[in-house]
Amino acid sequence: MILEGKQTQNIVPEPTLRRLPWYLAYAKLTFAHGEKSISSTQIAKNIALDAAAVAKDLSYLDISGKTRVGYDNQALIAALENFLGFTKNHRAYLFGVGRLGGALLQDTGLQQYGIEIVAGFDAKYELAGTSINHIPIHHIDKFDELILKSNVRIGILTVPVEQAQEVSDLLVDKGIRAIWNFTPYRIRVPEKVVVQNTSIYAHLAVMFNRLNSFV
Amino acid sequence: MILEGKQTQNIVPEPTLRRLPWYLAYAKLTFAHGEKSISSTQIAKNIALDAAAVAKDLSYLDISGKTRVGYDNQALIAALENFLGFTKNHRAYLFGVGRLGGALLQDTGLQQYGIEIVAGFDAKYELAGTSINHIPIHHIDKFDELILKSNVRIGILTVPVEQAQEVSDLLVDKGIRAIWNFTPYRIRVPEKVVVQNTSIYAHLAVMFNRLNSFV
Repeated sequence: MILEGKQTQNIVPEPTLRRLPWYLAYAKLTFAHGEKSISSTQIAKNIALDAAAVAKDLSYLDISGKTRVGYDNQALIAALENFLGFTKNHRAYLFGVGRLGGALLQDTGLQQYGIEIVAGFDAKYELAGTSINHIPIHHIDKFDELILKSNVRIGILTVPVEQAQEVSDLLVDKGIRAIWNFTPYRIRVPEKVVVQNTSIYAHLAVMFNRLNSFV
Repeated sequence: MILEGKQTQNIVPEPTLRRLPWYLAYAKLTFAHGEKSISSTQIAKNIALDAAAVAKDLSYLDISGKTRVGYDNQALIAALENFLGFTKNHRAYLFGVGRLGGALLQDTGLQQYGIEIVAGFDAKYELAGTSINHIPIHHIDKFDELILKSNVRIGILTVPVEQAQEVSDLLVDKGIRAIWNFTPYRIRVPEKVVVQNTSIYAHLAVMFNRLNSFV
């Protein structure tokens, strides 16, 4: 996460934002099992975290629990989903309809988490006019025109490494304000543009190393 | 990354393992542009990191550069790919052929990074006997039998949250030693089992928050 721009006070620490979805998943699971209440101690125990840390994370939410009872489970789920942005519909464009890009277009599960890919763009002329999972694919040359008519401010970057910086520059130039970067390339952006790096291949490297390091 | 087991000395810090793929991507890019040599200063400059940090990260590799010239680019690329485990073929099973699981089966790009998904498993009987991208899908009941005949030690977890722990327990019980967990659920595993969490939805939460926090 590159963070250089001016921010308002509602910035939440990244570790908290990464843990909150765990609590959400756990709360939903217990709710599905009929549990109407949930406490931070219970969450902490299940997730193998310190109870104070869980309570601190949850303090960012606009919700309060009752002593010895905890939170109303349904209210906690709603508060978490809302806080994490999963209940909003963030429209996004995807750039680079290759293997990974195509796979993401197939993943209809993303919508549940507040992101809707409304179009894909690629430099290959043969892809223009096709669609994946009912999402239209356009030639990258049409991006200028389409973004003007849209309110899309999120770009998902799945182009080959060689194009990562160039495409990123184009997106920023045309008004994209957040780039979800799936390429293994470290793109550079101006201040005030949000970059979220999700290089699943880097995660693989960590896993391989740990696997080989264990006796 | 949960790390509780006994480890040998070749454990590499996670931040280093996450940065090395950036250097690899950059080295490949410059090599494609005809650059035969590459220095840690140059890498650092491009990636906006401190040169000393880059040099330290690269010191884990079995390669040395020349003063004022830097590394032989091709040798550095080979050393990085090898060190990161991308040149080996790690066979993996995927569990949960839903939206995300199906998308990962489509992503043939994973093989370039050293992982080959050799089969998918799902609890839905109608999926058994089908295939995606030439990868066979089996009913989860066949897992016991198939793992015995294989040398697969990596499991990719893309089941629904409600099944995450149960399936994880099954994998560990049958000899899976590393779990690449794409679910938003924090699974618990015994010591010596490697867990790599890649919750792309948690990354979305971070991105949404940053996007809303910027003025």
